[in-house]
Amino acid sequence: MKALVYHGPRDVRIDNVPDAKIEQPTDVLVKITTTNICGSDLHMYEGRTNVEQGKVLGHENLGRVIEVGKAVVRVKVGDMVCLPFNISCGFCRNCERGFTGFCLTLNPGVAGAAYGYADMGPFQGGQAEYLRVPYGDFNCLILPEDAQDKEADYVMLSDIFPTGYESTELAGVRPGETVVVYGAGPVGLMAAYSAYIKGASKVMVVDRLPDRLKLVEAMGAIPIDDSKASPVEQIMALTDGTGADRGCECVGYQAHDSEGQEQPNLTMNNLVKSVRPTAGIGVIGVFVPEDPKASGELQKKGQIAFDLGLFFSKGLQMGSGQANVKKYNRYLCNLIHEGKAKPSFLVSHQLSLPEAPEAYQRFDARERGWTKVLLKPAA
Amino acid sequence: MKALVYHGPRDVRIDNVPDAKIEQPTDVLVKITTTNICGSDLHMYEGRTNVEQGKVLGHENLGRVIEVGKAVVRVKVGDMVCLPFNISCGFCRNCERGFTGFCLTLNPGVAGAAYGYADMGPFQGGQAEYLRVPYGDFNCLILPEDAQDKEADYVMLSDIFPTGYESTELAGVRPGETVVVYGAGPVGLMAAYSAYIKGASKVMVVDRLPDRLKLVEAMGAIPIDDSKASPVEQIMALTDGTGADRGCECVGYQAHDSEGQEQPNLTMNNLVKSVRPTAGIGVIGVFVPEDPKASGELQKKGQIAFDLGLFFSKGLQMGSGQANVKKYNRYLCNLIHEGKAKPSFLVSHQLSLPEAPEAYQRFDARERGWTKVLLKPAA
Amino acid sequence: MKALVYHGPRDVRIDNVPDAKIEQPTDVLVKITTTNICGSDLHMYEGRTNVEQGKVLGHENLGRVIEVGKAVVRVKVGDMVCLPFNISCGFCRNCERGFTGFCLTLNPGVAGAAYGYADMGPFQGGQAEYLRVPYGDFNCLILPEDAQDKEADYVMLSDIFPTGYESTELAGVRPGETVVVYGAGPVGLMAAYSAYIKGASKVMVVDRLPDRLKLVEAMGAIPIDDSKASPVEQIMALTDGTGADRGCECVGYQAHDSEGQEQPNLTMNNLVKSVRPTAGIGVIGVFVPEDPKASGELQKKGQIAFDLGLFFSKGLQMGSGQANVKKYNRYLCNLIHEGKAKPSFLVSHQLSLPEAPEAYQRFDARERGWTKVLLKPAA
Amino acid sequence: MKALVYHGPRDVRIDNVPDAKIEQPTDVLVKITTTNICGSDLHMYEGRTNVEQGKVLGHENLGRVIEVGKAVVRVKVGDMVCLPFNISCGFCRNCERGFTGFCLTLNPGVAGAAYGYADMGPFQGGQAEYLRVPYGDFNCLILPEDAQDKEADYVMLSDIFPTGYESTELAGVRPGETVVVYGAGPVGLMAAYSAYIKGASKVMVVDRLPDRLKLVEAMGAIPIDDSKASPVEQIMALTDGTGADRGCECVGYQAHDSEGQEQPNLTMNNLVKSVRPTAGIGVIGVFVPEDPKASGELQKKGQIAFDLGLFFSKGLQMGSGQANVKKYNRYLCNLIHEGKAKPSFLVSHQLSLPEAPEAYQRFDARERGWTKVLLKPAA
Repeated sequence: MKALVYHGPRDVRIDNVPDAKIEQPTDVLVKITTTNICGSDLHMYEGRTNVEQGKVLGHENLGRVIEVGKAVVRVKVGDMVCLPFNISCGFCRNCERGFTGFCLTLNPGVAGAAYGYADMGPFQGGQAEYLRVPYGDFNCLILPEDAQDKEADYVMLSDIFPTGYESTELAGVRPGETVVVYGAGPVGLMAAYSAYIKGASKVMVVDRLPDRLKLVEAMGAIPIDDSKASPVEQIMALTDGTGADRGCECVGYQAHDSEGQEQPNLTMNNLVKSVRPTAGIGVIGVFVPEDPKASGELQKKGQIAFDLGLFFSKGLQMGSGQANVKKYNRYLCNLIHEGKAKPSFLVSHQLSLPEAPEAYQRFDARERGWTKVLLKPAA
Repeated sequence: MKALVYHGPRDVRIDNVPDAKIEQPTDVLVKITTTNICGSDLHMYEGRTNVEQGKVLGHENLGRVIEVGKAVVRVKVGDMVCLPFNISCGFCRNCERGFTGFCLTLNPGVAGAAYGYADMGPFQGGQAEYLRVPYGDFNCLILPEDAQDKEADYVMLSDIFPTGYESTELAGVRPGETVVVYGAGPVGLMAAYSAYIKGASKVMVVDRLPDRLKLVEAMGAIPIDDSKASPVEQIMALTDGTGADRGCECVGYQAHDSEGQEQPNLTMNNLVKSVRPTAGIGVIGVFVPEDPKASGELQKKGQIAFDLGLFFSKGLQMGSGQANVKKYNRYLCNLIHEGKAKPSFLVSHQLSLPEAPEAYQRFDARERGWTKVLLKPAA
Repeated sequence: MKALVYHGPRDVRIDNVPDAKIEQPTDVLVKITTTNICGSDLHMYEGRTNVEQGKVLGHENLGRVIEVGKAVVRVKVGDMVCLPFNISCGFCRNCERGFTGFCLTLNPGVAGAAYGYADMGPFQGGQAEYLRVPYGDFNCLILPEDAQDKEADYVMLSDIFPTGYESTELAGVRPGETVVVYGAGPVGLMAAYSAYIKGASKVMVVDRLPDRLKLVEAMGAIPIDDSKASPVEQIMALTDGTGADRGCECVGYQAHDSEGQEQPNLTMNNLVKSVRPTAGIGVIGVFVPEDPKASGELQKKGQIAFDLGLFFSKGLQMGSGQANVKKYNRYLCNLIHEGKAKPSFLVSHQLSLPEAPEAYQRFDARERGWTKVLLKPAA
Repeated sequence: MKALVYHGPRDVRIDNVPDAKIEQPTDVLVKITTTNICGSDLHMYEGRTNVEQGKVLGHENLGRVIEVGKAVVRVKVGDMVCLPFNISCGFCRNCERGFTGFCLTLNPGVAGAAYGYADMGPFQGGQAEYLRVPYGDFNCLILPEDAQDKEADYVMLSDIFPTGYESTELAGVRPGETVVVYGAGPVGLMAAYSAYIKGASKVMVVDRLPDRLKLVEAMGAIPIDDSKASPVEQIMALTDGTGADRGCECVGYQAHDSEGQEQPNLTMNNLVKSVRPTAGIGVIGVFVPEDPKASGELQKKGQIAFDLGLFFSKGLQMGSGQANVKKYNRYLCNLIHEGKAKPSFLVSHQLSLPEAPEAYQRFDARERGWTKVLLKPAA
């Protein structure tokens, strides 16, 4: 089958690789109809991880079931399914409590597995014609009858919609509250979108790229340009000087200051300053335990200079980690199905698989207008 | 009246000061029968804060009501009452949701007020014969009929019992879980004690002072001596290599490494390593937003070099802040009344008010056996 | 001052009564600018309660502060304020945990007090020129600067908006879920409205009055006419045969079957059948502990023939009781202020105080189009 | 293999039946070493259900794994395992959220499956030499190395310990609260025991059988003999006239009044009266949706005459349903392992399988001293 394969830093190619196939009686085989390029794919693309050469990338996958293993009873051939990016067993002590992002079974020694991802187990990704799905009965979200009409919406259930949503869960967003989101990339936009779904009264989103800020405004949130003035002061001015009720970190360790210097603690410390005492913060932007190629000494060790003193004196809470997609995807799916959510608003490109290498290059260059790329391997 | 007054670093004296009295119709006046010296009093004693000279110290107070303001209806003259160290109005947006440690009314510009404490408002402390209690109907916990028999237990409801307890709330301790507590001072011991009250299956407490570790053992918890071997490794060995389900930070920014160097990030980063993925951490040891006299550059700004990368990859959560005593004191009081809790086990000294200056000196020197000092002004 | 006074069954009049005034240092005096007639006022109007003659009715009140007691510090003369229908002290064991609908102080012997209401204490209502507000600092919600422009929205914060909202809290509504509401009166409509605010994917509302069902449809919910076919079957058909995720009871003991017979267990048992296993139910329609004038033997004792067997076998949960308005009014206020909620959509009449007696008569007769009546005493 | 088989009302026999065996690749085969007789087995024994003749009974099972299906990866041959009485798939919309008592896969058309139980699917019970366990990786709780020494404790994890515990969860018991439990049978005792584990300050247990009341006293709870005086009045006297903070129903529809008449609403209405306003109630005693052989008209339809008026005016909440054992068994297992819980205290008999028919007869007769019977098929 054809698949997008990692060959080294900034070198991904469409190769012929062995067909994905059923390996265990609990597996399901899916013909991929939509698979996205994610911002976190760029971490691998840029050579900043230790992903192995030959890996098929792609963890945001949707398609049609074409074969099921002997032990599979719920999923049927022909079902349109969306796959959480995290692969999980369903029965370990983390999965059984809903922490499917921290499965203890599928990636021994590490809590959490994923398709086509550095350090997340031996699983191939879905930027390919076919995908093997372990524990299919547990992992497949079976889509409603309008699956094909709304494929660009439903595919967001694989990652960025639940991920953005989880940041609002970790932050504890409740109806009527004010929310600040740092980062207006796809996940940050989904966080802001989710905050409104949950009844937030006011959502402010901090970024500096003009086309991202336009998307913020288009969805009804308040854009905060941190290249123009202090984001903390802007947020204080919008919240009667008290700070937001909740905050979401959707940038991660590759935050840059306004001079373009990487400054991994920038958004976290701004968040601590931007929220009011007793607030909650959800951290969904990626921070890594070690980063040997980083320039800063702290960042090499996976540390940041964190304003814990202010955090403590304000009595803040924070939650973090990659999203447990299965906790939310069924309910967010209902919202799409009933027309209450339409996350495809941020899709900028729908391309064929052969166009993927160029898409990686342009997406990585943050070219204007390349917000979110969907690949269509079956087209 | 006689009161313990701050005169400067390591200089506290028993002075005659004007009597505390009713100032507002919502006030209550209490004759103090027991008032404790708290570990956080030592921060002021050592001159590390900007507490003003002339301040009467003492925020762990219990006594008998001798007068009530005209607007007071619930509290009666003669009631034995225990006062939360945090003074709160009961009606601001924080108090109304139970965050009485972050009252917005009583210390304008800062969230939170307390008796006799640096930066916590103009309120005098209770290491004195009498204490003025603002919003008496809201702040007084009226004690049961055995108040005098169990005064050394009930006085712990003013601060360290609810504070230790809150660290287990912030960490999310649930029945059957394993818990690690860093710090076996009075608050850490109360955290461990609270974890068992909540049904923890195993509680491990890290410290290095022999008499503290003995108290840990005496209460049925597992002492971890971090001067002997890595506490993280000891905890891993006790939890099948997975880490504790929950962690409590009860040391704060004055953590010292085994060579005696102050290392403010020591316990936080050890905690991140000591708990398992998806765990929760409760931070109740004090961290301060700025500390100009500190030696470390980060600590001067109230920052620590924090292992956020590991925190994130494990999907951890943490809560922090000074305890909201009123959330818990009524229920912990029930436990004392019914004989299910006896926090006085950690009391080492019961002294008269004139003995207080010497007690400060010896408690500050961490003299062996000076675990917890109660003062009896009315004796 | 002029006030609407209860003189007996179906006999309310505008009388001159002594002016409301400050009685305690914690009181606030409010000049009423809007006060609503509530469906529960009709229970008293119809003579079905033991409300005393001479009582001024009116528990949904909004106005301007014209005087404050000596102990009041937060509320200022000139503030526009909305008053929760429940009057609460702020410091009893129920109020301190947010259960302000069950205050133990203000109505000794009963948990809960209210303005102008049977069995809810000696407090006069606000269908009058002035209103005395006990514990003003605790009870007043201070409105934003657009208070007068949106008075018809903000007045809903006194009762029906938080009450409808609380039914969704008690039911446990979460984003993406399906919700069934029994009753499309003002509270039922607010429940449906609140469910959408919280991100429900589909809300179905059961009633049979055509103008109510039209309002259901107008707000984007699905009207279920139970006079046409079994509501349970209609809901099953709309939920793939599984039942709704959550249910709200907004009718109460005066439920009538399609032949017009009062049947107090009708909606509760229909709800048990309409929701899916593991669902939650919020009961906010009024049920009374005794009802001597009722025809049914069970109802006389405040009992219903309840399908507990089915409830248990489905593993359901339910919460009940009059709303704790203060838990929600601040946040719902934000939604109105930010233009995210506009509960005035159900107002049908804005009348002067002298028009109130006729309004009671026509509202009680369920005249077509009399959805919600606002009185303007200051006009 | 030998197994206890239902032949009709009050007729159970030890028969030779076909060996249990692996049927699906996800199955596990267990050699039963301990299996209990449960009070709910008596519902079937007495002929009050429509359980089919030929059914092997027994849903409280523990044993050693002797074979695993090809898709099983976590459970190994030789593991000692305890099986939750509810059989669950792990991947349906109820199981994935932890509601394993309401599995939608294994008993099509009904939410929930169990071993050897009326209306709970085609699964044979474990009062036999061997047991087939579907979805073994999901359903097996692997026991620690002291499994055999504490077998009489660990077997309680199959049902009554988590069931009693869940009643305290549904009631919302928190540290320091007072709790009333109706029913001192095995589940009621486990509820009281669990309440203390969770830090309750005072637990009161209502029953009238002297040997049960003795067990209540022995475990440190307060026995309330409802044959001597009104249980409600006794509880009010023990709670300063306010009622208990939380209540647990552990009797079910076969409640009897003091004259020995079955009165299915007795305990529920007493509970409503026994708890204080804003309390929570957990209902874990069995109520059935229909009971054609009952004498009362309401009970035939699965209804009770319920004090909903009082329930509402007190603002109560209640949860119900058979326990989701897997939510709790891992953590309760830790408590047994660490010596913090010893539920075997209520075991009265450990018998061989051939002794089971007589044990049924005597247990059903409520013979004095027959509190809890364990069967040892492998002995």
